[in-house]
Amino acid sequence: MSKQESNSPKLNSKEDDSSTGFIGKKLSRREMLRLTGVGGLGLLLGGGGIGSIIAARSAAAPSRAAQASSALADSIPFFGEHQAGILTPAQNFLCFAAFDLTTTKLSDVKKLFQAWTSTAASLTSGQLIGNVNDNPNLPPTDTGEADGLSPSRCTLTFGVGPSFFDGRLGLGSQRPASFQDLPVFTGDNLEPQWCGGDLCVQACADDMQVAFHAIRNLARIARGTAVLRWTQEGFQRSSGADPKGATPRNLLGFKDGTGNPDVTDRKEMDTVVWNNNGDGPSWMNGGTYMAVRRVMLRIEVWDRSNLSDQEATFGRHRQTGAPIGSKDEFDDLDLKATDASGKLIIPENSHSALAHGDGTVKMLRRAYSYSSGMNLKTGQLDAGLLFISFQRDLVKQFVSIQQRLSKNDKLNEYMTHTGSAVFACFPGAREGGYIGQSLLG
Amino acid sequence: MSKQESNSPKLNSKEDDSSTGFIGKKLSRREMLRLTGVGGLGLLLGGGGIGSIIAARSAAAPSRAAQASSALADSIPFFGEHQAGILTPAQNFLCFAAFDLTTTKLSDVKKLFQAWTSTAASLTSGQLIGNVNDNPNLPPTDTGEADGLSPSRCTLTFGVGPSFFDGRLGLGSQRPASFQDLPVFTGDNLEPQWCGGDLCVQACADDMQVAFHAIRNLARIARGTAVLRWTQEGFQRSSGADPKGATPRNLLGFKDGTGNPDVTDRKEMDTVVWNNNGDGPSWMNGGTYMAVRRVMLRIEVWDRSNLSDQEATFGRHRQTGAPIGSKDEFDDLDLKATDASGKLIIPENSHSALAHGDGTVKMLRRAYSYSSGMNLKTGQLDAGLLFISFQRDLVKQFVSIQQRLSKNDKLNEYMTHTGSAVFACFPGAREGGYIGQSLLG
Ligand code: HEM
Ligand code: HEM
Repeated sequence: MSKQESNSPKLNSKEDDSSTGFIGKKLSRREMLRLTGVGGLGLLLGGGGIGSIIAARSAAAPSRAAQASSALADSIPFFGEHQAGILTPAQNFLCFAAFDLTTTKLSDVKKLFQAWTSTAASLTSGQLIGNVNDNPNLPPTDTGEADGLSPSRCTLTFGVGPSFFDGRLGLGSQRPASFQDLPVFTGDNLEPQWCGGDLCVQACADDMQVAFHAIRNLARIARGTAVLRWTQEGFQRSSGADPKGATPRNLLGFKDGTGNPDVTDRKEMDTVVWNNNGDGPSWMNGGTYMAVRRVMLRIEVWDRSNLSDQEATFGRHRQTGAPIGSKDEFDDLDLKATDASGKLIIPENSHSALAHGDGTVKMLRRAYSYSSGMNLKTGQLDAGLLFISFQRDLVKQFVSIQQRLSKNDKLNEYMTHTGSAVFACFPGAREGGYIGQSLLG
Repeated sequence: MSKQESNSPKLNSKEDDSSTGFIGKKLSRREMLRLTGVGGLGLLLGGGGIGSIIAARSAAAPSRAAQASSALADSIPFFGEHQAGILTPAQNFLCFAAFDLTTTKLSDVKKLFQAWTSTAASLTSGQLIGNVNDNPNLPPTDTGEADGLSPSRCTLTFGVGPSFFDGRLGLGSQRPASFQDLPVFTGDNLEPQWCGGDLCVQACADDMQVAFHAIRNLARIARGTAVLRWTQEGFQRSSGADPKGATPRNLLGFKDGTGNPDVTDRKEMDTVVWNNNGDGPSWMNGGTYMAVRRVMLRIEVWDRSNLSDQEATFGRHRQTGAPIGSKDEFDDLDLKATDASGKLIIPENSHSALAHGDGTVKMLRRAYSYSSGMNLKTGQLDAGLLFISFQRDLVKQFVSIQQRLSKNDKLNEYMTHTGSAVFACFPGAREGGYIGQSLLG
């Protein structure tokens, strides 16, 4: 995602990260509380344990610390027109969680989103949740493993799945017309344990422990209303290991993200990502749809294929990321160019050629690699890509491209789709409001 | 592990990491090759694919790049008296792999360790493996996903399990007397998929992708001689998120590593960690024994317990890490101190009290947290600690402490040991030699 990164404010570059950087030194969770006075959210909430966290957290009381911190440290504002974690240049780590509802009461769900909103504001600004001076006779309000860590550009992105509108909550009529589970694609090998979910939270951060802490605490707060259905951790090369902030490589060794649209181009984003007036129900205005596919890569098979086959598979050169026959990573894909014998230089069935198509249908990809030990069935590494993309319309964008890919992509030899889910990601919340408010009222 | 970190050269501190740091800017894999002339290992090896990598890699031909790089970038020397990754201050990430042999020929095993040694020298110095200008008609010699990334303080630590001496290789008589699979401890709930192994590689790095890349390429090179048996990824808070380099917290929110012996104290390390003349077979002189336990934490149960119970469980305060009743993290554990009513201040069955015992038996812990999605049996997070410790003698140190813990530790309520393995970690290799040479000749 180097295009995104090079266009973005250098909040996360090495220079600015160092304690001598001009943006100012990093502040830990505890320091930030001290700096913003009393105890931020803590004092607002009291120390009454989980039950009271949910009860006490009105979205109408955003913490002062949250506002102060974003200018001071490596934090990304939680509130805004759109949710963060979508156009945000990809952080180093992902902890993705799908939840199932255990309630049929809409009021419970509303309370959950309100509690999640104010908790997310703490988490993304690097604050401890709840009261700092925890009452020894109660469970601590924050599970503690991120105490002392910087915000680490943590973003939390919330969505609801098609099953959210299945009638249980009385919201059937609010389901956007084209929002439903993905069709079965050629070659799909889905396992229920990696599919679906009534709700999702995508936690991204430059620190794995910070991302884990966020999901764990959001799951904890959901007790009685929703339970975890599946989770998946992901990573990419960390910014610290990459001196120049080049486009990250996936586990097949290829640069991944080159062909993404430019996230700083507002017009493009309004076309590709954000729902606008008239797209569907108004509660999705400013929101977007997320497609998630857990794709296991046949790493050992790939590792036995020739470099030229690998390059023909993607239609790009491995080392530079440039289209086959070109020099620069960001050179245009010329899908009509032929060699002396009249043969297409970029194979028709290459992943880039098929995914690009005629160039009119785009999506914003924001994938992470995963490595989850070994697959007990195959005895091989269970590693691959947690593919995540954002688009204005799932059918017109994700489905139409994936239909093409699933039939002809040369990459199919080397991968198996094992998981699948889609979510409607709400518009952003403004301070004083909460995530999901446009739908839940 | 803040004690270790604060005593260590600040190779990994933010200041020195930045491109303006005085140690010099970080160099990528490719830049390092350019800088050291031609193509490092590449030219020595030619481009003959995997088979020829193994054949061509004589440990007698360490690359010039490897020597040049360690002074220049965030790399840790691979060669030395002891293996790296033992006293090395813990990096941010772990990728642990246990292997099973698929050969009974000692000469194959010797060739594997020779190939692993020269490959490890490339990997830890941030070089690509093999020829940079890969022949398009062959599989690339390096899988490529770490191309462009800095060495990231990568260390690779090799060992052999008790089954290595089961007779297949004719090495039965070389097995150190007290080196055998761990006994079954009270409460053990081991699953075969997380146990044992003829060989192990512990890959640690400040970048997850670098650690993964190392294991994957070592596994690839082992084809025909050994196959992966189990792998586990691990993490701790990253140095980037921790402005002050404090002791990392485990997933229960407590600082973990405080009570470790001082790795800069050579005498202490000779007592606690390194095998010396007379300890056992001479091939282990300068080596050490590794105990690995995969411990699943009952996170949801823990999260419902009171702060005071949590502190009584560890015998330490959560926020500061200090022994109960003390102020400073590094204050001595006073296990005899009593309160006004005569009750011990640090409970007898607390983890720290039991693990500490009379203070004469120590080990060096180097654990990582793990989070591996959900446990399908329990519907809860499969997260916990990949406990790793190094000691001079498994029975006298690990077993004696774990026997005490498994019977009485208050922490047992909150955890399940699901995996177990032990390995004899060879002494270090000197340039020109190879890992395992003292045993394999
Ligand atoms: C494991 C699975 C996948 C891998 C490893 C992968 C990898 C890549 C790589 C290396 C590129 C070329 C560089 C770039 O433009 O980013 C690419 C391009 C692309 N991929 Fe994938 N991809 C995967 C699955 C998918 C899926 C499921 C979709 C959508 C249905 C998709 C859509 C695209 C698109 C739209 C492009 C850009 C094409 C253009 O240049 O316009 N990919 N992918
Ligand atoms: C999930 C499992 C475990 C967790 C979460 C855990 C956590 C901790 C914590 C928080 C401390 C106090 C801080 C410190 O000194 O580092 C500690 C100390 C210690 N633990 Fe563990 N531990 C676990 C398992 C084990 C096991 C299996 C052993 C060895 C058999 C062990 C041996 C020790 C030792 C030797 C100490 C230091 C005691 C001293 O101060 O002398 N731990 N552990």
